[in-house]
Amino acid sequence: MSARSTSTENHPVTPTSSAPPPPLAEGALRVMALGGIGEVGRNMTVFEYGGRLLIVDCGVLFPQDDAPGVDLILPDFAPIEERLDEVEALVVTHGHEDHIGAIPFLLRLRPELPVVGSRFTLGLLAAKCKEHRLSPTLIEVAEGQRSKHGVFDLEFFAVNHSIPDALAVAVRTPAGTALHTGDVKLDQLPLDGRLTDLAGFSRLGDEGVDLFLADSTNAEVPGFVTPEREIGPVLDSVVAQATQRLIVACFASHVHRVQQALDVAEKHGRKVCFVGRSMVRNMGIAAEQGILRVPAGLLVDLDEALEMPPHLVVFVSTGSQGEPLSALSRMARGEHRQISIRPGDTVALASSLIPGNETAIFGVINGLVRLGAEVVHQGSSKVHVSGHASAGELLYLYNAVRPSNVMPLHGEWRHLRANAELAELTGVPPDRVLIAEDGVTVDLVDGIAAFSGRREVGHVYVDGLSVGDVGESTLSDRLVLGEGGFLSITVAVDAATGRAVSPPTVSGRGFSDDPKALDDVVPLVEMELSRTESEGIVDTHRIAQSVRRTVGKWVADTYRRRPMIVPNVLPVSS
Amino acid sequence: MSARSTSTENHPVTPTSSAPPPPLAEGALRVMALGGIGEVGRNMTVFEYGGRLLIVDCGVLFPQDDAPGVDLILPDFAPIEERLDEVEALVVTHGHEDHIGAIPFLLRLRPELPVVGSRFTLGLLAAKCKEHRLSPTLIEVAEGQRSKHGVFDLEFFAVNHSIPDALAVAVRTPAGTALHTGDVKLDQLPLDGRLTDLAGFSRLGDEGVDLFLADSTNAEVPGFVTPEREIGPVLDSVVAQATQRLIVACFASHVHRVQQALDVAEKHGRKVCFVGRSMVRNMGIAAEQGILRVPAGLLVDLDEALEMPPHLVVFVSTGSQGEPLSALSRMARGEHRQISIRPGDTVALASSLIPGNETAIFGVINGLVRLGAEVVHQGSSKVHVSGHASAGELLYLYNAVRPSNVMPLHGEWRHLRANAELAELTGVPPDRVLIAEDGVTVDLVDGIAAFSGRREVGHVYVDGLSVGDVGESTLSDRLVLGEGGFLSITVAVDAATGRAVSPPTVSGRGFSDDPKALDDVVPLVEMELSRTESEGIVDTHRIAQSVRRTVGKWVADTYRRRPMIVPNVLPVSS
Repeated sequence: MSARSTSTENHPVTPTSSAPPPPLAEGALRVMALGGIGEVGRNMTVFEYGGRLLIVDCGVLFPQDDAPGVDLILPDFAPIEERLDEVEALVVTHGHEDHIGAIPFLLRLRPELPVVGSRFTLGLLAAKCKEHRLSPTLIEVAEGQRSKHGVFDLEFFAVNHSIPDALAVAVRTPAGTALHTGDVKLDQLPLDGRLTDLAGFSRLGDEGVDLFLADSTNAEVPGFVTPEREIGPVLDSVVAQATQRLIVACFASHVHRVQQALDVAEKHGRKVCFVGRSMVRNMGIAAEQGILRVPAGLLVDLDEALEMPPHLVVFVSTGSQGEPLSALSRMARGEHRQISIRPGDTVALASSLIPGNETAIFGVINGLVRLGAEVVHQGSSKVHVSGHASAGELLYLYNAVRPSNVMPLHGEWRHLRANAELAELTGVPPDRVLIAEDGVTVDLVDGIAAFSGRREVGHVYVDGLSVGDVGESTLSDRLVLGEGGFLSITVAVDAATGRAVSPPTVSGRGFSDDPKALDDVVPLVEMELSRTESEGIVDTHRIAQSVRRTVGKWVADTYRRRPMIVPNVLPVSS
Repeated sequence: MSARSTSTENHPVTPTSSAPPPPLAEGALRVMALGGIGEVGRNMTVFEYGGRLLIVDCGVLFPQDDAPGVDLILPDFAPIEERLDEVEALVVTHGHEDHIGAIPFLLRLRPELPVVGSRFTLGLLAAKCKEHRLSPTLIEVAEGQRSKHGVFDLEFFAVNHSIPDALAVAVRTPAGTALHTGDVKLDQLPLDGRLTDLAGFSRLGDEGVDLFLADSTNAEVPGFVTPEREIGPVLDSVVAQATQRLIVACFASHVHRVQQALDVAEKHGRKVCFVGRSMVRNMGIAAEQGILRVPAGLLVDLDEALEMPPHLVVFVSTGSQGEPLSALSRMARGEHRQISIRPGDTVALASSLIPGNETAIFGVINGLVRLGAEVVHQGSSKVHVSGHASAGELLYLYNAVRPSNVMPLHGEWRHLRANAELAELTGVPPDRVLIAEDGVTVDLVDGIAAFSGRREVGHVYVDGLSVGDVGESTLSDRLVLGEGGFLSITVAVDAATGRAVSPPTVSGRGFSDDPKALDDVVPLVEMELSRTESEGIVDTHRIAQSVRRTVGKWVADTYRRRPMIVPNVLPVSS
C-alpha cells in the first residue's frame, strides 16, 4: 500500500482567494474548521444549517518553535464569536486535550452552552472545568444513541482510539448527512472489546453519507496499526527482566496502556504507584467509572512506594513527552526530590514520540541512561502503538461509508493530501474530495460539496493569564531576541538643544559573554550624538533612529550578528 | 536482536570526579575525546604517547534549541591548546562536516599542522579551507597504506559510509594498537564495490587490538542497514511516475545517492541540474576524481533547465534538512525566484530526518504538498538508508576485531550504552568497556584501559564572525528573552538627590501586542521612585534594583509571565 498516486493534478486546490463566503443558501449545510486542518491539534469544526450552528470538538494546539513562550494555541473563535447564541450544542468526540482543551475558553464566552459527550469524556472535561471554576451543562450520550439539538439530529458511534469511550458523530440535517470520525483507528481486538462500529458506518453508508470528515493523522503510514494488546507481552518481559526500580511512563489518558501495566505488575507481584497529577486524577476517574480495573490492594501512594524495596513497585508516570517540569524529566536530571535513578533501574517509555518533542524526549532518555538506567522506548522495543488509523484501515472506513463527498480532518497538509488520495482510490471522485484548511467554508448543496469562501482565522495564543494579546508582532520580536539578544543604548538629551546631558550607557543582554564586546559603542554613539546635535536635531525619535542605524551597522560589520537595537533617548528639561 | 540487556550494573560508570588526569605514565597511551562522545557531532579524538599527540577528526556540531542563534559548535581545544606544537598530525576519516568542519578553526591556531586523509576527503577539505583563505598541508593516503607520524604508526582501512572514500585508522604505538572506525557501516554490496575491510580488521584482530573505538550512532537499531543500491529502483519508480517537474533532494556529499539519481535520470531521458552551492561544488570534485560518473551531456545548468519542458529535467538539490535559506525551503514557501512548484510536480527527499530537524523538514514537506506537489520521503517510501552500522553489523565488527578494550564513539548516551552492551555480548568484559564522555581520559597501560581523569571541556560557540565570546550566560539570556521578551524602564534621576528629572519611559519588546498592556507601569514606577527618593536613595544601582523588583512582581501577578526586566537609571547632573 503506497500513499503515492499520480492523480494529484485533479485535486481541487483550496481556494487561495480570501473572499468571505456568501450567506448560506437555504437548505444548504455549511462546514468550516476553526482549527485542526493544516495542523495537528486545536480541532474544532463548525456545522451551520438554517442559521443555527453545531460545534464538534474544541481543542488546543501545543506550540512549536515558531511560537516561543506561548503556553497554548486556541482555535480562532472570531468567525462565530458574534453568533455564539446560535450554537445549539458542542459535541466532544473524546477527552484528549487537542479536542477538549479550549472548551473552558469557549465557555467563558457562553457559559451555558450544552456540551455533549460520552461518560469518560465528560468526566475528564468536568475535572478540567473545575480547575477553571466553571460548571458546564453536560449531556451524556453513548454509542447507538441519537440526540437532537435544534435542527441537528445526531447519532453516535463507538470508535476505538488511544483513550476509552471515543465517539464518532453523524450529523443529520435536511441538507444531508455528515459523518465526523473524531480520532479513530480500527483495532480488531481492542482491550475493552469496544470496536469501531464499522457495521454502524456501513448501515449509515447504505442510508447515504453526503459528507465524510475523516481523521488524516496516519494516512501517510501504509498498512495497519498493531493491536494495543500486543504491548502487554512486551511490558511483561520488561517487568520480568527488571531487577530494581521500574518506571513505566505513558500518556495520562491512555487507560488501556495503564491497564496493561497494572496487569503485568500484579502478575509479577509488584505494587503500583501513580506519579503525576494528571495520571492520578484521570486514573481515579477511570477506576470510578469501571473503565480501569484496579485489583484491591494493588495501588500504593508515593510515600508507601518509597518505603518498599525497589523491585516490588512499578511507578506509572507522566512525562513521556520530555516535559521539562514533569517528574520523569526531574528524575533524568537527578533533580527529583524523592526518586533517584540508580544503575540497574528500568524505565519504559510506553508512548509515542510526538514530532517536535524529539530533542526533549531523547534528552530525558540520555539523562536516565547516563544515571545507569536501562531505558526501553519505541525506538528499541514495541512499547507503543498509534491511536490513529493507518492507510489500510482508512480504506476500510471509506469502503464502509461510501461517501459522496470527503473532507479530510486532523492533520498537516501531507496527512490531508494522503488521506484525500486514499478516498480517491476507493472511488470518490477527485473533485469531491475537499482539503478545506482552517477558515475555508465548504457548502453542501443538493448533495454536492464545494468550496464557498474563506474566513480569516489566525492563531490565538495563551501566554500566562492572558489570551490573545500575544500576537505575531510579539512572537517575531521574541524570535529576534532569542536568536541575537539586544543592545540597549540609553542617553538623556537636553529637550531644547538635543545635546547629550550624560554619557550614553550601553548594555547588551543575550549578545556576548565578553565584557569588552561593546567597548567601542560609547564613543561611536557620542560621535553620532555630536553629529545630530550639530545638525540641530532635537526630536528624540529622530535621534533614536540615528543611534539605531549607527549601532546596527557597527554590529553587523564587526560581528555579523543581528541583535535587536533598542535606543532610549530621554528628553530632560534643563 | 535487542539492545536490552540486564548487565548494566557491571558497567564502569564514567568517573564523576573532575580531577584532571595525572601526567601520563611512561609507555602508556592516553585517549581523550574533545567532542563527539555524549553528543552527535563535533567529533575529535586525541591520542597521546610519549609527550606527542595525534588528532583524529575535528568536526562541528549543529546547534539545537538550547543554543539559540549559534551557527556552529566546535570541540573545545582548551586541553591541547598549549600543546599544539606537540601534535604530529591530524587524521580525517571522511569528509562530513561533523568530522572536518572545525579544521579551519584549528588551523588558525597552527596553520602548518599536517592533515592526513583520503583523496576525496582532502578534496572537500581543500575546498572548505579555500573559503577560509587557508592553505593547509595535506597528506593523501589510501586504504592499505601505512604512514608514520612521529611515534604514531598509522594504517588505513577502507570503510563504507554515506560518503565515498571513508577510512578507519589503526594507531600503533609501543603501548599497543588502537583502531578508530570513524563512521562506518557494512553494506555488503556497496555501489562502488569498496567494502568495509572486515578482512583487514580480522588480520589486525589476529595481531591484537588493545583499544577499539567504534561508531555508536545506530547501536540502538536492531538488525542491518538496507544496501544503498536498493534506493535505485525506488528512485526509478519515482522518476517513472513523475509527469512534470522532478526534484531529488539529498545531502550534498552523498555521491552514491546522487549517482543513482543521475543513472535513473539518464534512463528516463531526463537531464540533470544541480541546485545548491555545496551540491555543485562537491559533485564537481567527485566527477573530477572519477568517483561520480557523469554521462556526457547529462548535466545542464539552471538557466538551461528552466528553459526545458519540466518532464525532461531532474533537479538534484540540497535542502533536505529543511534549512530555511536553502533553495528547497524557498520553493516550499513559494519564494524561490526561478522555480515555482506546481500541481503535478514531484519532490523526493532522499535523505535522513536528523533528530531536531523534524519540524523544519515537515514544514518544507507541507509547503510543497500544499502547492500541489507529490512528496516522497522516508516516512512514506524507501528513499533513504542510514550510513551507520546497526547492531547486527556492529557485532560483525566486534567479532572481527576481538578487542581487549572498547571505547564507544560518536553518539548520545543512549547510543554509547547500546554500543557498550553489544561489545559485552561478544565477550568483551564489562569493565573493559569504557564510556568516556568528552574530556574524560582513558589510559592504556600494560594492555588494560582505565579511566584516568577528566579535563573540563565545554561547548565553544561560533556566532557570526566571533568564536567563543557567546557562552552560557549569553545563551541563558537569549532563552529568557526568546520566551518572554523584555520590559525596559528608563528614567533619568538627579545624581545628587535621586529625584526623577523626567517621567519614566516604559517599553516592552516580545511582551504583548496590546498597546495598553503596560499602561499601569509608569504610575507604579513613579510611586516606587518617590519611595526611593523619600528614603534618600541616590545610588542608581539600588534605584534600578527597586524598579526591577517592583515591575517584576507586577508582571508576575498581572500576567503570570517572566519577561526580562531591564531598568536603565541615568544619573544627570542638575
